[in-house]
Amino acid sequence: MSNPVLIEVWRGPMIESAHTGALAICGTDGRPLLALGDIDRPIFPRSAIKALQCLPLIESGAADRFRFSVPEIALACASHSGTDRHTALAEGMLARIGLSEGALGCGCHEPQSAAAARQLVLHGRRPSQLHNNCSGKHAGMLATAVHLGEAVAGYYNPDHPVQQRVHKTLSEITGLPLGRDVEGIDGCSVPNWAMPLGALARAFAQIVTGDGLGPVRRKALERIVEACWTEPELVAGAGRADTVVMAKLPGRVFMKTGAEGVYCGAFPQSGLGFALKIDDGAKRASAGCAIAIVEHFIPEARGLVDKSTLTTWRGLPVGHIRSSGMLDRALERIKLG
Amino acid sequence: MSNPVLIEVWRGPMIESAHTGALAICGTDGRPLLALGDIDRPIFPRSAIKALQCLPLIESGAADRFRFSVPEIALACASHSGTDRHTALAEGMLARIGLSEGALGCGCHEPQSAAAARQLVLHGRRPSQLHNNCSGKHAGMLATAVHLGEAVAGYYNPDHPVQQRVHKTLSEITGLPLGRDVEGIDGCSVPNWAMPLGALARAFAQIVTGDGLGPVRRKALERIVEACWTEPELVAGAGRADTVVMAKLPGRVFMKTGAEGVYCGAFPQSGLGFALKIDDGAKRASAGCAIAIVEHFIPEARGLVDKSTLTTWRGLPVGHIRSSGMLDRALERIKLG
Repeated sequence: MSNPVLIEVWRGPMIESAHTGALAICGTDGRPLLALGDIDRPIFPRSAIKALQCLPLIESGAADRFRFSVPEIALACASHSGTDRHTALAEGMLARIGLSEGALGCGCHEPQSAAAARQLVLHGRRPSQLHNNCSGKHAGMLATAVHLGEAVAGYYNPDHPVQQRVHKTLSEITGLPLGRDVEGIDGCSVPNWAMPLGALARAFAQIVTGDGLGPVRRKALERIVEACWTEPELVAGAGRADTVVMAKLPGRVFMKTGAEGVYCGAFPQSGLGFALKIDDGAKRASAGCAIAIVEHFIPEARGLVDKSTLTTWRGLPVGHIRSSGMLDRALERIKLG
Repeated sequence: MSNPVLIEVWRGPMIESAHTGALAICGTDGRPLLALGDIDRPIFPRSAIKALQCLPLIESGAADRFRFSVPEIALACASHSGTDRHTALAEGMLARIGLSEGALGCGCHEPQSAAAARQLVLHGRRPSQLHNNCSGKHAGMLATAVHLGEAVAGYYNPDHPVQQRVHKTLSEITGLPLGRDVEGIDGCSVPNWAMPLGALARAFAQIVTGDGLGPVRRKALERIVEACWTEPELVAGAGRADTVVMAKLPGRVFMKTGAEGVYCGAFPQSGLGFALKIDDGAKRASAGCAIAIVEHFIPEARGLVDKSTLTTWRGLPVGHIRSSGMLDRALERIKLG
């Protein structure tokens, strides 16, 4: 790999660590306005594409059949923090389709919200599958199976009709075959298909513009994106970048983080999408890079999310995380162009 | 940076993420038996050199004056898990020198032991500075100040005699000036000086052989290393690599992790030391690399620590973390040589 350094981690007078990666920014024509590193190598988009994985829920009619609300559609696109509000909504979605927590296949993990995790301990409870950051997505997937009269068991397997619909949707939008050679299983046990950053960035431009999509899909994506802008706290959680930025700038930027250093987003006004992957998978770097991009395109975003200062456990500032000169200059060139 | 990939993270059929880094293995003559990547660039060793930072505690006579026990000396070299045993020992060390938790300057963080963190929540307590993984090191540093009649306040500052002694010790052992140009502040608020991996690996070879050191320092290091081998659970904590490996193989390998992807270790029988730094700072990669090295030199270590399988939240295996072909081949060449 010979991707450039995108993020530097400084301690005192020196760079202590550095994160290389690749980044594509393009419009719906797919022509890269910016390409740093290898944007053609397929990468697993992970949770960054939850808005696309949510499409069958809308397009199948399941969301209407079960009268899923705006918050519930936002939760179906979420990597949520596992607070009471998040888990209650997921539970409500399941109840509406006649199922309960046990039907989920996403597995359990501690809530990402430290306060929620603390409350569980205090009440002597273990996390349930509802606390899994993907429980909304899984409830939405189960809804499509129930709506279409399919078996609920094994809905997470690559060969199940639920995942086949997701596969078909992703393949249609990206124009890629997405074969077994790029199929992996995500942390929540559903399949994820690796795709080039260039294709991902173009897909995100389409998410917010609808360009090149049929009227049904365009309308479905409008509904999904509007839900995320209306309920940004449900897409992630208090204090997290996606929530903070979209709460402040709804209609200006749509953004979604993914595991292993992935970030995607799009700007409706300029019709541009971006997709990036940090080679080593570090979230501090993917977040830093995404924030640099968002701040470049939307000056009002500056300072909304600042995780750049490194401090000691006593709070003494001793370093900082910053975008590399290479990334800064590349973004600057877009402004001039 | 153009360091080679040392660790690969696979998901299904593909490498999802990769970690580059540099690695030096050498004897006390400093001639590298293995050099992967740039081993001359200074890197912050962070907590990997706690055994060296502990030297003034022994050499000043403070450990004897305050009758520090073997467990207490091990704790002074530790990045501990913050269990009751760890915190009680740190508190005891402070009591012995007439101080209490408030004298520490390391700051507070949640115990690394999930069980200990849970117990704190259940008892409605917040973590104290005793839970900081460095509290033993700090108690040892304070002991030298008290022993030598120095002011206790500000003992963590680079200009305080406590840190000047640490600086002198590190400078003597590495033969490096360690000036302000390589001075950073560690997460626990004491100074840390960047040094090349080659010098670090040589220093670790000296730690376990004593070669080239005067009799006082040699004896002090013997005492430190023996303490860590006698009480490996105090150096880290249950289930952690340093503890597991040293508990099983005392006298065969001395190893210590550091933040931001650093690992150092040494093998007394072969007289070799190693030092490595993952460019991006990932612990999963530094640990994977250190384990590969230890397993190469000590076949009995194989399987002691296995964090190589990636699973979903339901426990389904979906990928693995492994040493790169480059690292495997480089280690293999040492065996043949």
